[in-house]
Amino acid sequence: MNNPLLTQVVRELTTPESTDTLLFHHSDGHPLPSLSVLTEIVDLCRAILFPGYFGHSGISSHTLPYHTGVNIESLYHKLVDQVKAGLCFAEKSECTHDKAENIAIEFISHLPRLRKLLATDVVAAYEGDPAATSYSEVISCYPAIRAISNFRIAHELHLLGVPLIPRIITEMAHSETGIDIHPAATIGSHFTIDHGTGVVIGATSILGNHVKIYQGVTLGAKSFPLDAQGNPIKGIDRHPILEDNVIVYSNSTILGRVTIGHDAVIGGNVWITEDVPAKAKVLQRR
Amino acid sequence: MNNPLLTQVVRELTTPESTDTLLFHHSDGHPLPSLSVLTEIVDLCRAILFPGYFGHSGISSHTLPYHTGVNIESLYHKLVDQVKAGLCFAEKSECTHDKAENIAIEFISHLPRLRKLLATDVVAAYEGDPAATSYSEVISCYPAIRAISNFRIAHELHLLGVPLIPRIITEMAHSETGIDIHPAATIGSHFTIDHGTGVVIGATSILGNHVKIYQGVTLGAKSFPLDAQGNPIKGIDRHPILEDNVIVYSNSTILGRVTIGHDAVIGGNVWITEDVPAKAKVLQRR
Amino acid sequence: MNNPLLTQVVRELTTPESTDTLLFHHSDGHPLPSLSVLTEIVDLCRAILFPGYFGHSGISSHTLPYHTGVNIESLYHKLVDQVKAGLCFAEKSECTHDKAENIAIEFISHLPRLRKLLATDVVAAYEGDPAATSYSEVISCYPAIRAISNFRIAHELHLLGVPLIPRIITEMAHSETGIDIHPAATIGSHFTIDHGTGVVIGATSILGNHVKIYQGVTLGAKSFPLDAQGNPIKGIDRHPILEDNVIVYSNSTILGRVTIGHDAVIGGNVWITEDVPAKAKVLQRR
Amino acid sequence: MNNPLLTQVVRELTTPESTDTLLFHHSDGHPLPSLSVLTEIVDLCRAILFPGYFGHSGISSHTLPYHTGVNIESLYHKLVDQVKAGLCFAEKSECTHDKAENIAIEFISHLPRLRKLLATDVVAAYEGDPAATSYSEVISCYPAIRAISNFRIAHELHLLGVPLIPRIITEMAHSETGIDIHPAATIGSHFTIDHGTGVVIGATSILGNHVKIYQGVTLGAKSFPLDAQGNPIKGIDRHPILEDNVIVYSNSTILGRVTIGHDAVIGGNVWITEDVPAKAKVLQRR
Amino acid sequence: MNNPLLTQVVRELTTPESTDTLLFHHSDGHPLPSLSVLTEIVDLCRAILFPGYFGHSGISSHTLPYHTGVNIESLYHKLVDQVKAGLCFAEKSECTHDKAENIAIEFISHLPRLRKLLATDVVAAYEGDPAATSYSEVISCYPAIRAISNFRIAHELHLLGVPLIPRIITEMAHSETGIDIHPAATIGSHFTIDHGTGVVIGATSILGNHVKIYQGVTLGAKSFPLDAQGNPIKGIDRHPILEDNVIVYSNSTILGRVTIGHDAVIGGNVWITEDVPAKAKVLQRR
Amino acid sequence: MNNPLLTQVVRELTTPESTDTLLFHHSDGHPLPSLSVLTEIVDLCRAILFPGYFGHSGISSHTLPYHTGVNIESLYHKLVDQVKAGLCFAEKSECTHDKAENIAIEFISHLPRLRKLLATDVVAAYEGDPAATSYSEVISCYPAIRAISNFRIAHELHLLGVPLIPRIITEMAHSETGIDIHPAATIGSHFTIDHGTGVVIGATSILGNHVKIYQGVTLGAKSFPLDAQGNPIKGIDRHPILEDNVIVYSNSTILGRVTIGHDAVIGGNVWITEDVPAKAKVLQRR
Repeated sequence: MNNPLLTQVVRELTTPESTDTLLFHHSDGHPLPSLSVLTEIVDLCRAILFPGYFGHSGISSHTLPYHTGVNIESLYHKLVDQVKAGLCFAEKSECTHDKAENIAIEFISHLPRLRKLLATDVVAAYEGDPAATSYSEVISCYPAIRAISNFRIAHELHLLGVPLIPRIITEMAHSETGIDIHPAATIGSHFTIDHGTGVVIGATSILGNHVKIYQGVTLGAKSFPLDAQGNPIKGIDRHPILEDNVIVYSNSTILGRVTIGHDAVIGGNVWITEDVPAKAKVLQRR
Repeated sequence: MNNPLLTQVVRELTTPESTDTLLFHHSDGHPLPSLSVLTEIVDLCRAILFPGYFGHSGISSHTLPYHTGVNIESLYHKLVDQVKAGLCFAEKSECTHDKAENIAIEFISHLPRLRKLLATDVVAAYEGDPAATSYSEVISCYPAIRAISNFRIAHELHLLGVPLIPRIITEMAHSETGIDIHPAATIGSHFTIDHGTGVVIGATSILGNHVKIYQGVTLGAKSFPLDAQGNPIKGIDRHPILEDNVIVYSNSTILGRVTIGHDAVIGGNVWITEDVPAKAKVLQRR
Repeated sequence: MNNPLLTQVVRELTTPESTDTLLFHHSDGHPLPSLSVLTEIVDLCRAILFPGYFGHSGISSHTLPYHTGVNIESLYHKLVDQVKAGLCFAEKSECTHDKAENIAIEFISHLPRLRKLLATDVVAAYEGDPAATSYSEVISCYPAIRAISNFRIAHELHLLGVPLIPRIITEMAHSETGIDIHPAATIGSHFTIDHGTGVVIGATSILGNHVKIYQGVTLGAKSFPLDAQGNPIKGIDRHPILEDNVIVYSNSTILGRVTIGHDAVIGGNVWITEDVPAKAKVLQRR
Repeated sequence: MNNPLLTQVVRELTTPESTDTLLFHHSDGHPLPSLSVLTEIVDLCRAILFPGYFGHSGISSHTLPYHTGVNIESLYHKLVDQVKAGLCFAEKSECTHDKAENIAIEFISHLPRLRKLLATDVVAAYEGDPAATSYSEVISCYPAIRAISNFRIAHELHLLGVPLIPRIITEMAHSETGIDIHPAATIGSHFTIDHGTGVVIGATSILGNHVKIYQGVTLGAKSFPLDAQGNPIKGIDRHPILEDNVIVYSNSTILGRVTIGHDAVIGGNVWITEDVPAKAKVLQRR
Repeated sequence: MNNPLLTQVVRELTTPESTDTLLFHHSDGHPLPSLSVLTEIVDLCRAILFPGYFGHSGISSHTLPYHTGVNIESLYHKLVDQVKAGLCFAEKSECTHDKAENIAIEFISHLPRLRKLLATDVVAAYEGDPAATSYSEVISCYPAIRAISNFRIAHELHLLGVPLIPRIITEMAHSETGIDIHPAATIGSHFTIDHGTGVVIGATSILGNHVKIYQGVTLGAKSFPLDAQGNPIKGIDRHPILEDNVIVYSNSTILGRVTIGHDAVIGGNVWITEDVPAKAKVLQRR
Repeated sequence: MNNPLLTQVVRELTTPESTDTLLFHHSDGHPLPSLSVLTEIVDLCRAILFPGYFGHSGISSHTLPYHTGVNIESLYHKLVDQVKAGLCFAEKSECTHDKAENIAIEFISHLPRLRKLLATDVVAAYEGDPAATSYSEVISCYPAIRAISNFRIAHELHLLGVPLIPRIITEMAHSETGIDIHPAATIGSHFTIDHGTGVVIGATSILGNHVKIYQGVTLGAKSFPLDAQGNPIKGIDRHPILEDNVIVYSNSTILGRVTIGHDAVIGGNVWITEDVPAKAKVLQRR
């Protein structure tokens, strides 16, 4: 490469004007959360929550305590670092090592509960799919379990006030599975998603227990109220509520803060922007 | 991390009750099939089937026999191990080394036929896409070729009675391409999928030759007959039949054991739950 | 594996007939472009364009010139090799080292402009999403930024006449994000895509500035005019034009060389094959 | 490369005559012991024996049991495979999985004793070197500890009848440290070697407790009795005996089945082929 | 592995008595210096000091500043961490981040001087070896340059009061080259070692300028004065002084605080424990 | 790190004066030979020459041709690149791709002969060591085989006029084994070295067949004739000649262009600077 151009392009790319919006400014020792370490964290959570399936596949009930101990210790150290990076990202004054440690400990203490919750999702996926042959197959293969695991991990971190990281974790699952669940969404037990590609579940959605969703379903916002400056007002409840036992078939779209009553069935390719009563069946007109 | 909590969480996570549904119990030496080895197996199949594109890119017709020999030997050893793991996963009494060897040999003996079949898919993708410039571009870039390769490999293993592994292989392609084809589906020659994200093809689907499908198309089940206990009855033919030369445009949904007759064209965003006669054109009403 | 079969399968897989369409024939020293090196190239572009987010996360304004210099030098060398491989792929007579160098230099000289353009996309994503908390979050997490970055990089290479590589780069993003933008498409500033899974933007699409698109939207071709031999005629303008400020909500499909006038809003799940006037609102009938 | 030559060289290199002495013939599934797995095995032994120094450096007394459990399980599985490979290498009829398991279990049960023995070597190195500042420094840095650890591990495997592997393990240390101890040598507690490069300790050497040796010292064989065919007779005691508290300074050579009595001191650059009485001092003449 | 034994061995290996001398006790966040990071540090120093030979081999004078800047930044961060670990290893109260930063900065500010010094060693090796064809060959291949580089780096860190790490760095070179130079030794400019295997240079040795040493040479201590408890007294000057232009041929041994006068030549296989006058020639008697 | 210092050190380290002797100047595309690629080349040679021991350990006589073909092709491509880098290193005008190809082809055509020669070294090591149990053990474990293999490979490249690379390859073995054989030395068949650490064999040494050498032996130069400028005259025969069947025991030194007659035995720790008649026995005086 002819050198004057190299020098010139480097100069252009390092002027303050050029980097103004796009260079992440941070003080020494406060880098961004690391995608690769967060991937390790999620893998450790999976290894702890689903022993024998992820992580060390030759695990037995005799060696389970050893592996669990080592994995939790490793998870703790990685989590403290990343949570601290997330806190510093959002607000420098808040990012103490102590605060990060407390959050990591709190998160880890919730793992037994998280495992119980995920077990209900496995059962739901198995029972709802005639092609499923065993819980083991569901845990090993089903993208829904992968996406819901990431969501439930991310949601715990979201509730503990960790910035940025929950979103990165759900976007990992989005990339792997095509299922995009915002970490702030509220989702009950026995949740399942079939096939899943194209599913979107917005930040203020609330789903009861035993909800089932198919590929291509959007639980989105209808429109964004604007503030005086014309910017979308942030933090308003703008996504649907699905009560217990609701099923939404493929490629349907439910928009806005509407309520789909318990035991309702929404057919495929349907567009809904209003409340649906309990036990109703809504189908596309032909 | 303060140690009492670590000890306590390890204890909670290793009680029999906590691990009951979620710990994979297996005897020594019988771990689960390995996702990373299966990835290597699929990569070896691609290197063997599409020499020069995948694997060793500098291959020439002179060195082709050497590379093919080495790749097949490697494929054989990895396949025997993984097939045995899959057999043991499903039923311990069935998982002999001999049985795994026979299946691996049988699979490898089908590779020449598989290559001929995949060649028809390449031709179909090239001829059906005005943006395609050469067979080489299609093989190198098109996600459909990746998804269909995985499907055809997985389908062979499915026909040979290998449990679990075929599904893992099609889910790999699902994750990479957003195309979800059940390994049990029956699909003829010259099959192509354009763009592909969101495509779902169910387990009992039957597709003839020269079928073309666009992104977001679902070939699904309408409803699941329940048995006396209210569980879905497994193994019933519940997905569509698409005869030769059928085209289904983007985001359409075809549900249930319906037949789309040969040369029929299904437009985009259409919802179909009944038979469609040969040569018909079905479009969304506006 | 019993050896006669190994020998026989190797022989079957290396006959000229068997490899005819599927073996990539190339002379020594002219292998195909490498997927893994192209991945490194895209990662280097991201590190240069978004310093502090991708690549070396501890970068500061003081060390920015060093990192930028090293990254551009590395990008240059990798790009020359890959561009040459792409040129040779398409036509051996055209693939000189000099030509590849000129293209690489030209591409690198456009990086400052590319960064300014991508900055407008970041602003658009931030302003259009009530859930976005900062530019940093958008750059770090949003799949749209990843997909649009790849597209804009690929588009520059497309304009410089590089074969194959632009398509491979947009397919990388397609696999990661489910967003499939053809590198030949023309897209203005302040472009954003929400969620994005299932989006398809065809090769001859033209999008103005400030366009916003939601998940599952297709900008496709209606039908392909065939030539005398019944093959699709390549190179015809066959995809939509979206003027400035157009919004298209989720899962809608716009087909053919139609024009969606400026400031028009296309609702979700809509099927459009005709022009839409400026400022119009098109909604699905219920 | 011009192809006829490639084909010809391949042919020459694969004739039976060409490979006769040099191709390792083995049946499927019985490859040679793996250098890289044996390296992992030695690293695991070091991590178990010297917790906090090798392997996971952040280990604490609280997490020690978890790490020890995981490491021993991993060691066991790797050891069974490698021991079996070693047994098959020596004699096919002897290489059952059961035998390999018994040897691995026996070896692991000796680890607590091995650690006690190695602790005496650490103490000896520390006390004998004015430059040593702490046990920790000795364990972390001193090549003697590395070489003696490998020797003691290899010696246990040698006593258990494992072929080939003990020699590979001491040759690893030979390569790293220049210290060549045959795994069959008998060496007491509190053994230390200073600097160590060039030390050779032959197979039938016997060393008491508290022996100290400097760089370049050879404990070798004087001459080999030949059998009727003129071949060296294998298995004869042909190396020196060093009783307790013997010191041998740098570059001295002791050859043959001679006895160096307890508390003797052998100066540097000395050549000894006869017994040395207890407490004697042998120096080079000037 | 049968589980009772596993449990029992784990228990035996984790009792306080068993780990007493051999478990490195440290508080959280203060692990030992890392061998692999120290290897990276030495590699970075080599890349900075010998640009074009180590690290990025395609470097040119135009891109040299970029690479140097990136390497020094990386070196700084790694060095701060490792120096801190070394300080904590020796004495917890001393190991502040600030102190580590100051040492790292001081070390880096000496790099230009270190490079000048190493250049004299390269010149000396080239001029003293009839087989050397160029400075480049000497830098690329000669183990002496590798060993002396590590020594000079380690010596700087030693002078800055860093514990443990200097010794680890010279032991790396010892393992690679068989040359064992204590980091506390004092060595002038234009130092060279031919072949080098087996060379030992003790901690209190002092070497002038233009000294040349051959393989197997020991500059050692004669005997250790013991304190009242019978332990070697640490810190006494106990190794030789070699004045300017001294040559010591292969396998000779010089012991104790003797002085070899300037321009003296010590032949091979000689044993010296007394002063040698300037310009003397000492040869082995035959 | 405080930035002014960083900037200043970078500036100091990049001045022309600072880099004058130590920056390797080369034109684009002509980097130095790569240590890691040369390591791969040596590993490929070992895999080809000792099939089943190095490289793919599961190789059988049936799959040998496939592996040999793939390995030779890979060796060829790597060798062409590295030989070209070596040629350019020495003299730019000489480094054409064609020349590098011819050398690589010539080298590969000698591999069958090289294997026969190495087989004699294996036999010699086995027959000369009472501790050796099989040829396989010798090939797998003995550092002498590793060092002699590297020497014989390097010597072939030296005879073909390749600069720098032969020396790098013998230095690799020097680092691993402590055996330093100059690639220009001339060594007959059935050569063996026992233990080997510290062995030095100079550039103009000539060894007949069936020579055996022990650890610490130097075959060196006595003194260097100086030219008018006081520089050592390069290229003079200055190392010993050892005729057939000579044995040299440990730590002996033979210096200068002396001849050790056939069947002579040189004892340990002996210093020789004059001719030794055939069949003589030379021992150290006591």
